[in-house]
Amino acid sequence: MRDRLTRLVALTRLVTARPGDQPGLQQLAQRLGVAKSTLSEDLAVVRQGLRDAGLGDIVTQVGAAGGIRFEPAVDQEAAREAVRRLCRELEDPERQMGNGFIYMTDLLFDPALLEPLGGLLGEQLRPLDPRHVITVETKGIPLALAVARHLGLTVVLLRRDHRLSEGSSLSINYLSGSSHRIQSMSLARRAPLRHARVVFVDDFLKAGGTARAAGDLVAEFGAEMVGVGVLVATTQPTPKLVQGLYACLEWDESRGVQPAPWVVRRLGRPENAGGSGP
Amino acid sequence: MRDRLTRLVALTRLVTARPGDQPGLQQLAQRLGVAKSTLSEDLAVVRQGLRDAGLGDIVTQVGAAGGIRFEPAVDQEAAREAVRRLCRELEDPERQMGNGFIYMTDLLFDPALLEPLGGLLGEQLRPLDPRHVITVETKGIPLALAVARHLGLTVVLLRRDHRLSEGSSLSINYLSGSSHRIQSMSLARRAPLRHARVVFVDDFLKAGGTARAAGDLVAEFGAEMVGVGVLVATTQPTPKLVQGLYACLEWDESRGVQPAPWVVRRLGRPENAGGSGP
Repeated sequence: MRDRLTRLVALTRLVTARPGDQPGLQQLAQRLGVAKSTLSEDLAVVRQGLRDAGLGDIVTQVGAAGGIRFEPAVDQEAAREAVRRLCRELEDPERQMGNGFIYMTDLLFDPALLEPLGGLLGEQLRPLDPRHVITVETKGIPLALAVARHLGLTVVLLRRDHRLSEGSSLSINYLSGSSHRIQSMSLARRAPLRHARVVFVDDFLKAGGTARAAGDLVAEFGAEMVGVGVLVATTQPTPKLVQGLYACLEWDESRGVQPAPWVVRRLGRPENAGGSGP
Repeated sequence: MRDRLTRLVALTRLVTARPGDQPGLQQLAQRLGVAKSTLSEDLAVVRQGLRDAGLGDIVTQVGAAGGIRFEPAVDQEAAREAVRRLCRELEDPERQMGNGFIYMTDLLFDPALLEPLGGLLGEQLRPLDPRHVITVETKGIPLALAVARHLGLTVVLLRRDHRLSEGSSLSINYLSGSSHRIQSMSLARRAPLRHARVVFVDDFLKAGGTARAAGDLVAEFGAEMVGVGVLVATTQPTPKLVQGLYACLEWDESRGVQPAPWVVRRLGRPENAGGSGP
C-alpha cells in the first residue's frame, strides 16, 4: 500500500512538472517500474485528484506522438494573492516616478507573482489555440515565458535592434503611444514562426502601438496574431489599436490600479486590491 | 481510501508547483479540509515519494515564518535529454552564422530545454547560498528565471541603457571580449539588492568581461557576486575573468560543442552529445 502511495506522489510530480512535456505511457511505466495497466489505474487517480482540487487536468493523446499532457488550471488562491499584492505594490507612492512611469521591473522578475498571473492569462488565451507566444524585449519576457509554460509553448522573441548573432532579419518602424517616439523591432528570418497562430504578451499597454507593430511584423512571416495579454493596461486611450486584449490590471489616472473586470469575474474581487472605491 | 489517494495527488501538486512558495501547514490543512495531524502524515508520504524517485525534498521551516518548502532535484532524464538536444542543435551547420556566432535565440526561449538546464545550474549554485539571481538583458533572461525558480529566488535585471521607467541608476562601462567594444550596463538605484549574495546567469561567456562588470556593478550596492552560471562557455581564452563559473556546455573551435566535465560527472556522458571523438 505504502508503495502505491509514494508511487502516486512521484507520478503526480512527473506528470505536472513541465506542462509542455508529453511523456509516453511506456516511458512513465518504465521509470516507475510498473506494468502499463497499473500505470493507467494510477493515472486515473492522478487525474481525479487534480480535477477534484481544481488544479488541472490530464489529457491523453493517442497516435504515434501519443502520450499524456498536463493542462494546469489557474491556482485561484495564488492568483488572487498575486493580484492583491501587485495592486498594493503599484499604488505605493515610492514607485511613482513623477514622469508618468511606475517602477515595476523588480515585480516583473518575481516568479511568485508571474507564475499565477501567467496562468490567468494563459487560461484566457488557450481557446485561441496559439502555437507560440511572442514578446518584444525586455520587460515582458518573464510574463511571456510564464504564459508559454502554462500552455506548453515556446516564446519567439522580437528584438529592438538587429543583432549580429541572429543573421538577416525583418524590421518594422512604428510610433509608440507611450513614448511618442518612432521605435523599431526586428525578427530573425530564421525564427521558427511560419504560418502559426501566435499571441503577443507584454508587461504594459497604452494605445497598443507596440502590440499592433508586432502583429504586422509576424504577418510578414505568414503568422497571425490572434490575441494579446498584458499585465497592466491604461484605461485611456480607448479604443485600443488591437483586438482580443486581456489585461490583468487596469490603470486609470483618477481611479488608480484595479483588477480588470474579467479578472474580478474569474477570481472575485480581491480585498485591498487597490482603487479608492468603498 | 480513494479520498486519501486523490488528496495525496492534490497535496503533491500544491507543494511542488512553485518551489519559491512556502505554504503554511494551517493554510494547506484548510485547503484540503483535513486536520493538521492528517496533513503531517500525508506530507511524510509526499516527502518519501519525492525522495524515493529522486525528484526532490521537502524542508520544514519552523518559527513565525514557518511552513514547508519544496527543493526540487534535477530531473536527470530531462537534463540528459536537454543536453543531448542542445549539443545536436548547436552543431547544426544551419545555425553557424559564419561570423563566429551561433543562432540560438529560439533555443534560449524554449522552456522544455531551459527548465532542466536551469535546474542543473541551480543545483550547483545552491550551496553558494545566493539571495538573488542577476542577469543582463536580453538572451540570458529565460535561463536566469529558470535558475531562480529552481532556487525559489527572484531575478534582478541589469539593463543595457538607462531607462526613464527606472529612475536614477548606476552605470558601468567595460570592454566586452566577445564584441571587442565598449559596452555599458546599469542598475536602478531602487533595485532590491542591498548587501545580498548573488549569482550571475547568462547564455554565453567568452572571457567573462560582462560577468565581471556585473559583479563590479552590484558591488556598488553592497552585494557580492559569489558564482556564475551560463549555458555555453568557450574553452578559450583561459583563465576566465570570474571565479566560480559553471557552464553547461563548452564550445571549442576544434572539438565543437560538448557537455562540460561537471555535467558529464553529474549525468553521465549523453549519447550523441556532439564532439567528434570516438
